[in-house]
Amino acid sequence: MQIAMVLYDRFTALDIVGPYEVLSRLPDAQVDFVAAEAGPVRADTGFLALTADKALADVPHPEVVVVPGGPGTFAEIENKALLEWLRTADTTSAWTTSVCSGSLLLAAAGLLEGRRATSHWLTLDFLPQYGAEPTGERVVPDGKYITAAGVSSGIDMGLTLVGKIAGDEHAQAVQLLIEYDPQPPYDAGSPRKAPAHLVEEFRTNSRFSLT
Amino acid sequence: MQIAMVLYDRFTALDIVGPYEVLSRLPDAQVDFVAAEAGPVRADTGFLALTADKALADVPHPEVVVVPGGPGTFAEIENKALLEWLRTADTTSAWTTSVCSGSLLLAAAGLLEGRRATSHWLTLDFLPQYGAEPTGERVVPDGKYITAAGVSSGIDMGLTLVGKIAGDEHAQAVQLLIEYDPQPPYDAGSPRKAPAHLVEEFRTNSRFSLT
Repeated sequence: MQIAMVLYDRFTALDIVGPYEVLSRLPDAQVDFVAAEAGPVRADTGFLALTADKALADVPHPEVVVVPGGPGTFAEIENKALLEWLRTADTTSAWTTSVCSGSLLLAAAGLLEGRRATSHWLTLDFLPQYGAEPTGERVVPDGKYITAAGVSSGIDMGLTLVGKIAGDEHAQAVQLLIEYDPQPPYDAGSPRKAPAHLVEEFRTNSRFSLT
Repeated sequence: MQIAMVLYDRFTALDIVGPYEVLSRLPDAQVDFVAAEAGPVRADTGFLALTADKALADVPHPEVVVVPGGPGTFAEIENKALLEWLRTADTTSAWTTSVCSGSLLLAAAGLLEGRRATSHWLTLDFLPQYGAEPTGERVVPDGKYITAAGVSSGIDMGLTLVGKIAGDEHAQAVQLLIEYDPQPPYDAGSPRKAPAHLVEEFRTNSRFSLT
């Protein structure tokens, strides 16, 4: 099963490494990290580069597509070649998926029209302009499309997808192997749970920034 | 604050990308991915390479050290240069940390003698031969040492460390930014919770393998 992990300048690393760590453990997985051109692609912080082993053009028909988000998403919405690749890949994919603001790229490519979808909580409001119906849920399957919320949610999305492809037992085995028994030291992982002033500071961009 | 993320052949990608995604959002973070030599370093699956921007020798005195695990750990236990780098870095580090079987490298370097520590559930039993006291806990601080359990636990470790360095509110802000509100579709993330036959199959290596 060929799985394409899409990279682009200023993606968020955990958005793609979370699903990769899970989906790469599917039976017969062939994971290809792809970008406009093969070579290193730098993540949003500037501190880390992941290697795209292949160009997008080398992987036209993957069975699974995973698109990460990150501050670079908004530049890629204008990238006609990437949106065209997504549309073409989607014509034959079994699953087309995203994490975080990556859903805006699927939406901009026209793939989420009339579908329920999610995104990073800070980018959820951009979905309706592309005809998608935003939800605040963490993992949102709608047909062959699965969108996930911000950054870390790609792990939950990956396990959900492994369950659909290879069955519950295989997904449980992968969860056990990656010891995914989360115990966050705080309970501030969603805008409904975090201190209200932190949510407000992100929304007004006064203290923290995604970019 | 200089943070060294150690890479070596056949590391597990999420082990290091989890803590990176969290710790890189510390105030004034300078994250350096380091390896024996600068350049791409291939993860355990073979499907992904992360770039080490610097050689270990270029970063002798980071304030934070993070060591991932992976199938490659056992080869690195014999790597005298790496163990010597760990010992030297530890003489001046504020925090020396590991994820997954990475704790075996700290232990082999002699840094965990007499300390409580954890590791991937499949490698926990290797700790006592280096004088460390194994625990089944997910994140184990002991003095300036923090060890974390398997793969995904590095996110919890990272948030714990951000809290210690920058305070609870900053850690909560990072948790909110990475939308870390885990909702695994299964509850099989530890050997205490997973179906017993899966645990047994991993232990006997009959079906799944870490390597």
